[in-house]
Amino acid sequence: MFDEVTLRLQVDPLILSALREDITSDDVSTNSVMPVATRGEVDLICKEDGILCGMQIFMRVFTLLDEKTEFEVFANDGDKITKGQLLARVRGDIRVLLSGERTALNYMQRMSGIATYTRSVADLLVGTKTKLLDTRKTSPNNRIFEKYSVRVGGGTNHRYNLSDGVLLKDNHIGAAGSVAKAILMAKEYAPFVRKIEVEVESYEMVVEAIEAGADIIMLDNMSHEEMKRSIEFINGRAEIEVSGNVTRENIARLCDLGVDFISSGALTHSAPILDLSLKNLHAI
Amino acid sequence: MFDEVTLRLQVDPLILSALREDITSDDVSTNSVMPVATRGEVDLICKEDGILCGMQIFMRVFTLLDEKTEFEVFANDGDKITKGQLLARVRGDIRVLLSGERTALNYMQRMSGIATYTRSVADLLVGTKTKLLDTRKTSPNNRIFEKYSVRVGGGTNHRYNLSDGVLLKDNHIGAAGSVAKAILMAKEYAPFVRKIEVEVESYEMVVEAIEAGADIIMLDNMSHEEMKRSIEFINGRAEIEVSGNVTRENIARLCDLGVDFISSGALTHSAPILDLSLKNLHAI
Amino acid sequence: MFDEVTLRLQVDPLILSALREDITSDDVSTNSVMPVATRGEVDLICKEDGILCGMQIFMRVFTLLDEKTEFEVFANDGDKITKGQLLARVRGDIRVLLSGERTALNYMQRMSGIATYTRSVADLLVGTKTKLLDTRKTSPNNRIFEKYSVRVGGGTNHRYNLSDGVLLKDNHIGAAGSVAKAILMAKEYAPFVRKIEVEVESYEMVVEAIEAGADIIMLDNMSHEEMKRSIEFINGRAEIEVSGNVTRENIARLCDLGVDFISSGALTHSAPILDLSLKNLHAI
Amino acid sequence: MFDEVTLRLQVDPLILSALREDITSDDVSTNSVMPVATRGEVDLICKEDGILCGMQIFMRVFTLLDEKTEFEVFANDGDKITKGQLLARVRGDIRVLLSGERTALNYMQRMSGIATYTRSVADLLVGTKTKLLDTRKTSPNNRIFEKYSVRVGGGTNHRYNLSDGVLLKDNHIGAAGSVAKAILMAKEYAPFVRKIEVEVESYEMVVEAIEAGADIIMLDNMSHEEMKRSIEFINGRAEIEVSGNVTRENIARLCDLGVDFISSGALTHSAPILDLSLKNLHAI
Amino acid sequence: MFDEVTLRLQVDPLILSALREDITSDDVSTNSVMPVATRGEVDLICKEDGILCGMQIFMRVFTLLDEKTEFEVFANDGDKITKGQLLARVRGDIRVLLSGERTALNYMQRMSGIATYTRSVADLLVGTKTKLLDTRKTSPNNRIFEKYSVRVGGGTNHRYNLSDGVLLKDNHIGAAGSVAKAILMAKEYAPFVRKIEVEVESYEMVVEAIEAGADIIMLDNMSHEEMKRSIEFINGRAEIEVSGNVTRENIARLCDLGVDFISSGALTHSAPILDLSLKNLHAI
Amino acid sequence: MFDEVTLRLQVDPLILSALREDITSDDVSTNSVMPVATRGEVDLICKEDGILCGMQIFMRVFTLLDEKTEFEVFANDGDKITKGQLLARVRGDIRVLLSGERTALNYMQRMSGIATYTRSVADLLVGTKTKLLDTRKTSPNNRIFEKYSVRVGGGTNHRYNLSDGVLLKDNHIGAAGSVAKAILMAKEYAPFVRKIEVEVESYEMVVEAIEAGADIIMLDNMSHEEMKRSIEFINGRAEIEVSGNVTRENIARLCDLGVDFISSGALTHSAPILDLSLKNLHAI
Repeated sequence: MFDEVTLRLQVDPLILSALREDITSDDVSTNSVMPVATRGEVDLICKEDGILCGMQIFMRVFTLLDEKTEFEVFANDGDKITKGQLLARVRGDIRVLLSGERTALNYMQRMSGIATYTRSVADLLVGTKTKLLDTRKTSPNNRIFEKYSVRVGGGTNHRYNLSDGVLLKDNHIGAAGSVAKAILMAKEYAPFVRKIEVEVESYEMVVEAIEAGADIIMLDNMSHEEMKRSIEFINGRAEIEVSGNVTRENIARLCDLGVDFISSGALTHSAPILDLSLKNLHAI
Repeated sequence: MFDEVTLRLQVDPLILSALREDITSDDVSTNSVMPVATRGEVDLICKEDGILCGMQIFMRVFTLLDEKTEFEVFANDGDKITKGQLLARVRGDIRVLLSGERTALNYMQRMSGIATYTRSVADLLVGTKTKLLDTRKTSPNNRIFEKYSVRVGGGTNHRYNLSDGVLLKDNHIGAAGSVAKAILMAKEYAPFVRKIEVEVESYEMVVEAIEAGADIIMLDNMSHEEMKRSIEFINGRAEIEVSGNVTRENIARLCDLGVDFISSGALTHSAPILDLSLKNLHAI
Repeated sequence: MFDEVTLRLQVDPLILSALREDITSDDVSTNSVMPVATRGEVDLICKEDGILCGMQIFMRVFTLLDEKTEFEVFANDGDKITKGQLLARVRGDIRVLLSGERTALNYMQRMSGIATYTRSVADLLVGTKTKLLDTRKTSPNNRIFEKYSVRVGGGTNHRYNLSDGVLLKDNHIGAAGSVAKAILMAKEYAPFVRKIEVEVESYEMVVEAIEAGADIIMLDNMSHEEMKRSIEFINGRAEIEVSGNVTRENIARLCDLGVDFISSGALTHSAPILDLSLKNLHAI
Repeated sequence: MFDEVTLRLQVDPLILSALREDITSDDVSTNSVMPVATRGEVDLICKEDGILCGMQIFMRVFTLLDEKTEFEVFANDGDKITKGQLLARVRGDIRVLLSGERTALNYMQRMSGIATYTRSVADLLVGTKTKLLDTRKTSPNNRIFEKYSVRVGGGTNHRYNLSDGVLLKDNHIGAAGSVAKAILMAKEYAPFVRKIEVEVESYEMVVEAIEAGADIIMLDNMSHEEMKRSIEFINGRAEIEVSGNVTRENIARLCDLGVDFISSGALTHSAPILDLSLKNLHAI
Repeated sequence: MFDEVTLRLQVDPLILSALREDITSDDVSTNSVMPVATRGEVDLICKEDGILCGMQIFMRVFTLLDEKTEFEVFANDGDKITKGQLLARVRGDIRVLLSGERTALNYMQRMSGIATYTRSVADLLVGTKTKLLDTRKTSPNNRIFEKYSVRVGGGTNHRYNLSDGVLLKDNHIGAAGSVAKAILMAKEYAPFVRKIEVEVESYEMVVEAIEAGADIIMLDNMSHEEMKRSIEFINGRAEIEVSGNVTRENIARLCDLGVDFISSGALTHSAPILDLSLKNLHAI
Repeated sequence: MFDEVTLRLQVDPLILSALREDITSDDVSTNSVMPVATRGEVDLICKEDGILCGMQIFMRVFTLLDEKTEFEVFANDGDKITKGQLLARVRGDIRVLLSGERTALNYMQRMSGIATYTRSVADLLVGTKTKLLDTRKTSPNNRIFEKYSVRVGGGTNHRYNLSDGVLLKDNHIGAAGSVAKAILMAKEYAPFVRKIEVEVESYEMVVEAIEAGADIIMLDNMSHEEMKRSIEFINGRAEIEVSGNVTRENIARLCDLGVDFISSGALTHSAPILDLSLKNLHAI
């Protein structure tokens, strides 16, 4: 769950913007047939097996529309849920339930989809020391939800954005002139509370990065052989991340490397949603 | 392409918000190694076969950061593109190219992913009179991009949001008391320029909807038999939409119905991204 | 009344912006004489006969400033009210009552003015099948209030804005090449849940529009003769709207046409306000 | 005209908000028939005699949508214009001309309406020393436009809002305990660059206000006799404003008083619009 | 204290913006160690003698994060406080206490610093008729807090901003052509509820300003002799303000002049903060 | 200088907000005397010796008001400047120069004040290996400007905010149960690209922190003896920061410790401004 502070400062404005995307004047269908508030109840039902994520956001959508909306919650973020399972019951003004439904589900289905996919990949790393990382390949204006979903699915978050983590890629190295110079410049410029990560593509770059004092080495699209050799050379002097189009289908080949982290953009950019539904709405 | 008006009023604020999500103070990696502006060039490369979508948004991300950024464009929205193809070349302040890269790609990969998936589904309807519709199951704060991507992929847009289209579902009907009453109330309340669509789940509801003057009938999760019988009864008196967990894998069974529209939430909620990349950045 | 959802998503930001227009630092007059909160009561009085509209907005202004403000309401939107009538009593921090007074009244006087004028025009259509429509000729940033006031006054809303209704005017027809082509292009482009309305200026255009399948025909500034001939030709195949500088003074000439709709920009752009006042403020 | 600073800081955000009120996704009619930008030209025509106001705002609406829009202007704010007169010619992307038309005219018609009405009232004060004042009875979120229109019409602005002028009304006096105390408290609290105005309803209050050092006395709804007596007593020791439902029809009775100011809410709250129109749009 | 209206309309958005400056995704330190809400208590302690200011803002920071936060307050704005004194006790979710701490203290330390410095300067004017004024030399986006702090410290506010007070400086006079012309133009343009202040640099300008009817004369950087001569000439016909790099160290030389106001930018631009601290946080 | 990306995304909204704080309707003094744009020129003059900082922000204020404003710049951020020195010449619409003056100077004076004070403290560390750090004790909504000014003055930035750096203080340690547990929990929760800093108050805590793998140890308000003993124990296994009411007056006592960093809140919270002025405005 998001703490109250993050919820108000960062999450609420995004939810409100999403609601305004869906309701630019009023909900004409609902207001046609319900000229006045009527109290009702609806069930949140799981339509597909997976990992639940986003119950707090689901509730927040309705609460932002009407703080008197009430919830009975039967499953929590991170729980395995199964088709047909009753996840929650929502009570409130039926107009609020109908107008908020799509936005609430759009968030929760996407978040649960990411948690479900992440869990399935993370399970493949069980028994190794390797942690599964996300990337910045998130849907625009949804990063805070998607990074959270990765954590719920058993993954670990890489940096949140360009301002709070240093990752020197080939272009940064090119601009600086060499791996060593880039590391030096970053140590000089970046607030000292940040580690310096460098993306390397060859054994030679690994050597140079270690000697220049990099905190984290990212092995990018390297051959298995070269990765092994690099890891041996690093020998605990830096943390190691492996990246490069990692998916559920191809991660197995990396498990024996014994690296600290494997990162996968697919966790956030290509997970299908988990099907959820509001059912049995009735007046009470 | 979005027209200039939509771009400024609706698209720009979303892009700026996405950029601020990725850069909350400054891009520390880039600014470490590039204390001053340096002119450079980078290539946008296709990494996977598919349909291109979002070239204008890709460019707009950089233009909003620096209007002097220049582009050579070699492929347009809707084009089939293939792995390895050079799609565009971008020239400008290298710091702008690096800081905008992820946001620009996050938009374009997602948009191209949706266009690609939509095209593959739309192709299955070729030769029928049936049009492929999207839904409101979009990523929060990304609807304008995703609805556009569906059009580029050969789909047709259903209503944009709750305020600009009437769709009476079971809950609206329940609130009104009957299909006929719901239609009557909607005709009374909704601005008269909107058609009245009703979602029905049985032949009996179809009959009632037609008699009450519905403009569009949505057959939701009905059996093939009942759909056929309903379509015969409607007989051109209303447009017909079929819905219910339609995907590329299961749409075939619906093609012979000869309905006007088939809608599929999967177009926007579960299309994987199309892999694109910025390569060969160099100073010029 | 606005439903809770519309109130929060669309109405509140506009009211807050209006309050900030009137209070850019603090209310110096009030704060001069009332350094601390004092509970008081004030009466909302009708100063002129008319139709009441905007009670909810009047209350919302004060509630947004202090949710502990209390109201006794003696008249509702749509009621005929008369000079001297007590409409409501407001209780709360006197500073809130004074600081919110002008904004609350500016909204309510304008809304009641529109409802009053609309009612007086709508009354002239009683006994006909013709409905009175508003237009988009509203005060900037006040459309949601003015369109609602038209409904309260007995009018019907035309489209809300450029995004949620299709109305092809002479310039669109010119751009498309012909009435028929414009209709075809709109059917292709616009979400299918929207009706296609065409503005025509001659009998010939009516014929072409009907044959191309227009849903609504707007007869604009046509002679009485030509309108009659057009209506006969249309013969129920499309809805008919008549427009063109319609006011309370000149609408009579159109009543015998038997059209579905007459639209009048004057409802929103030229209705004078209805005089209301806060009186008898006293501490309690 | 607004200076560049006010235009950018205060005017532009309001215009953009108004445009977003009218275009929540895109202009479906225009985009249906004009898939690409086409250069065109349109005439701004006067449909009714009056005083022009708002040419800069009219142009700004289009410029905000596309800064390449060009204008030939044939009449300026404050000019008497007559039915049929060509006021300006606008050249640019036809889609921009069509999408911005309504918002541009909504501003300009309202502004010209206020200037026209104000001029007609101000003309009745010609030959006296009395200036015509507006009030805070403006349309919410339109004050900056309406106060400007009053100036263009020959009126003078009263305070802009609650934060930048002191006006002690009966309720403030009641809270303070007496006229004298209220004036004293305001002198103490309000920034010293503000004058202290007091609203009085009797000769006795006038005496007290003068003795307490009020800068401006507002005679509110007083009898002609009592006003005369009050004015004599004041005898130049304070400026004098007269108020109370002043309209074009009833202002004559106040002209002989020789006061400094007469204020009228009707200038902004009840002026009908001046009819203007965009005509002859054609590609170029 | 700020009244409720000002707090909500003007203060809250600034506090929220400051909180978002300090928390762009979440408070990682706090959330690391406190995965769930825990109720706790913390003391606000004075670390340095001075004048307290900003208790309401201190509390508001926490209340905006969680309205259930509770406060026991032992000192009020304007009180002399001493090192070691317990000023308040705060109870609530420890995560809220930790995440809000820095922003709450940043406001309060700065406000108390200004109040403390202002009081020390104002004390030097005790026994004279002269009031101490602030200026517009405030920290950007903090004016409302800093002007308030000056009042708490015993100072008086000059105009709030460029829109609500007239102050004609040398450049305005230059543009108008002469002191007299500038005053005349300001009387014509500015809302009549504003006084006209003129900044003068010589006796000759004083004479001209008085004759043109200036309400307030600001003597800027004039010699003591020339000020005396000017004050004699003015002789009560206008209020007099003296300005020019006034600080605690150099104000004494001005006390004998007997002017109405002395203004000092140092009150807001150079007061050091007053040290305050949150101590003894513990769970309850 | 800020790079273009940071300028647009983060800096511009703050400047615009500051300008709107100073101009809520229009600049009445300036608009009184200058009804139309007139081109002019003004000099930016140094009034006090110090370090220049904020030239880009000074220029940006005017450019945001009118992009045609031109600048000749004679000194750069970080330069030592002396009383009387001409720093820049600005050319443009005089109204823009007058309306933007105060906001431009408020930023630049504060930024230069911080750079000047920081430089004077940093100079005391010359010859040691110790770097001077800032804190989060910045003016609300001014952090990006103040942290930059510290860098210009020769200081180094600590973390930017609560989201992008981990600093475990006594309260975090209390919540976790022990130093070791807090470090462990932070390593688990915080994105792995962040270092873990722990604030300790005793030698025992230092030992525990080192053994638990802290990256940075902050010695807070410890005795000189205990600091020495701690530093010896750490012996390069972590970076060391010393903090605790460090000012220019008392920093000397810490110089011999040989720590990596000394942090000082005074750099941002108590630096007086550097006096700068716009002079010699004249039409050209």
